[in-house]
Amino acid sequence: MRLVRFGDRGSEKPGLVDALGAIRDLSRHVPSLSGTALEPERLAALRDLDVDDLPLAPRGARLCAPVSRINKIIGVGPNFQESAALAGFKINPEPTVFMKAPSAVSGPNDPIEIPRLATRTDWGVELAVVIGRTAKYVRVEDAMSHVAGFTLANDITERALQLQRGGQWFKGKSHDTFAPLGPWLVTPDELKNYDDLTLWLEVNGVRQQQGSTADMIFKVPYLVSYISRFARLEPGDVILTGTPGGVGLSYDPPRFLGVGDRMRVGGDGLGVQEYVCVNC
Amino acid sequence: MRLVRFGDRGSEKPGLVDALGAIRDLSRHVPSLSGTALEPERLAALRDLDVDDLPLAPRGARLCAPVSRINKIIGVGPNFQESAALAGFKINPEPTVFMKAPSAVSGPNDPIEIPRLATRTDWGVELAVVIGRTAKYVRVEDAMSHVAGFTLANDITERALQLQRGGQWFKGKSHDTFAPLGPWLVTPDELKNYDDLTLWLEVNGVRQQQGSTADMIFKVPYLVSYISRFARLEPGDVILTGTPGGVGLSYDPPRFLGVGDRMRVGGDGLGVQEYVCVNC
Repeated sequence: MRLVRFGDRGSEKPGLVDALGAIRDLSRHVPSLSGTALEPERLAALRDLDVDDLPLAPRGARLCAPVSRINKIIGVGPNFQESAALAGFKINPEPTVFMKAPSAVSGPNDPIEIPRLATRTDWGVELAVVIGRTAKYVRVEDAMSHVAGFTLANDITERALQLQRGGQWFKGKSHDTFAPLGPWLVTPDELKNYDDLTLWLEVNGVRQQQGSTADMIFKVPYLVSYISRFARLEPGDVILTGTPGGVGLSYDPPRFLGVGDRMRVGGDGLGVQEYVCVNC
Repeated sequence: MRLVRFGDRGSEKPGLVDALGAIRDLSRHVPSLSGTALEPERLAALRDLDVDDLPLAPRGARLCAPVSRINKIIGVGPNFQESAALAGFKINPEPTVFMKAPSAVSGPNDPIEIPRLATRTDWGVELAVVIGRTAKYVRVEDAMSHVAGFTLANDITERALQLQRGGQWFKGKSHDTFAPLGPWLVTPDELKNYDDLTLWLEVNGVRQQQGSTADMIFKVPYLVSYISRFARLEPGDVILTGTPGGVGLSYDPPRFLGVGDRMRVGGDGLGVQEYVCVNC
């Protein structure tokens, strides 16, 4: 199943993408894609619905992030050997873990804000894991039973604020629109190859990133288990699993985003995000 | 006004503390102490209620964190000269800013969990600022109009996980119960001297910390303004403003928390937290 949220800000509804790619309104069957509605069993029950009976969403409806009431977004630092080496980050023996503010979430086609203080705004396509069931001290072999599904993310970072303003990454990671998610939440039964997906990102039509989740140093089940040792993971929490080679910081000279730049971002089975950078 | 939330987990109600210290039930007048209910004007309207007409809460009701649906908890790194120097942190020319997971919030008398991996669990009494109105790029002189009020916090940290496991502080800051808040949210009109309050903390009856918010390097209005340059602050967001001298890490030899230890934590006008450390 590919689950979405659609509609204008403040009146978003849950939906699903049918076999023809049209959006069907799920709001009579699930109040929202958040909290306990994301439990794997409850998502599985939606599979029993007759999709043809669900009303079609209005054509051209805005897509939002596919999950609401996100309590935490947890990012994983360098998790691809090539990306880390090129950008000058070292790989730690354990994952580096940080948080992005949930207020940074935006939809898969919403404009990306360039912060007023920005000089080095960078991109990073990632596979995002959405938690569906509370996880605390879970074992690696049990980790996937706590996952609601996957979505596409772009872990946008203002590098000057991340790296040059006091040590912790908060300042460069949490600006509004720095966490576009979507277009959809795909359930694990439809993304069995989550550990071998191609991810890519283009700026103004030029491919900047392309890599496979097969090259992740720390794999999805390990990350869920590992993070659950330090904080309780709750339904709707999002884990960003790290970005492959080709972030702007890794080029010589480095490449950063400016107002008017257009990005296209995609991943196998995850759909495509497309947006323009704007002032704020 | 001193606003509280009371009741068992999952059935918390909003309330206020009357002139005699009793808790009055506000649930007929405000659905929850969260989101837009925290706007300064809406809190001010509660002052018109006749307190004697409000039902009394059951005696001995559990107090919870005084705000619900907290989207982000933003901590400020070393913000007291003495504390920073003793603990070996340097003061940056700008505040160091980090996040704690909102899942770490607990009530003012709930037990504190010592994580399974813990070896150096530390304390830190702090003045917490609760945001009442969205703030983005706000000026210092306008900052206080975005504040719903203040509460007492203990910024608990597992130092080994904070400092020895990969650079970012997430791992040591976000365990369940590492952010006790309360007992109440006091509105700014009743805490005009927020920049000159004594804060103190005792472990097993021995005073470990005592300091005044007058010694904060970065003051509350500056912190609200500063953080709003990097992330949108929303109603219910909490800023922890830093801890005075006397954290466990600063003693020689250092002092850390163990199962069975009891803490009492207080601040002028902010009330008292009291709890025991337990296994998890």
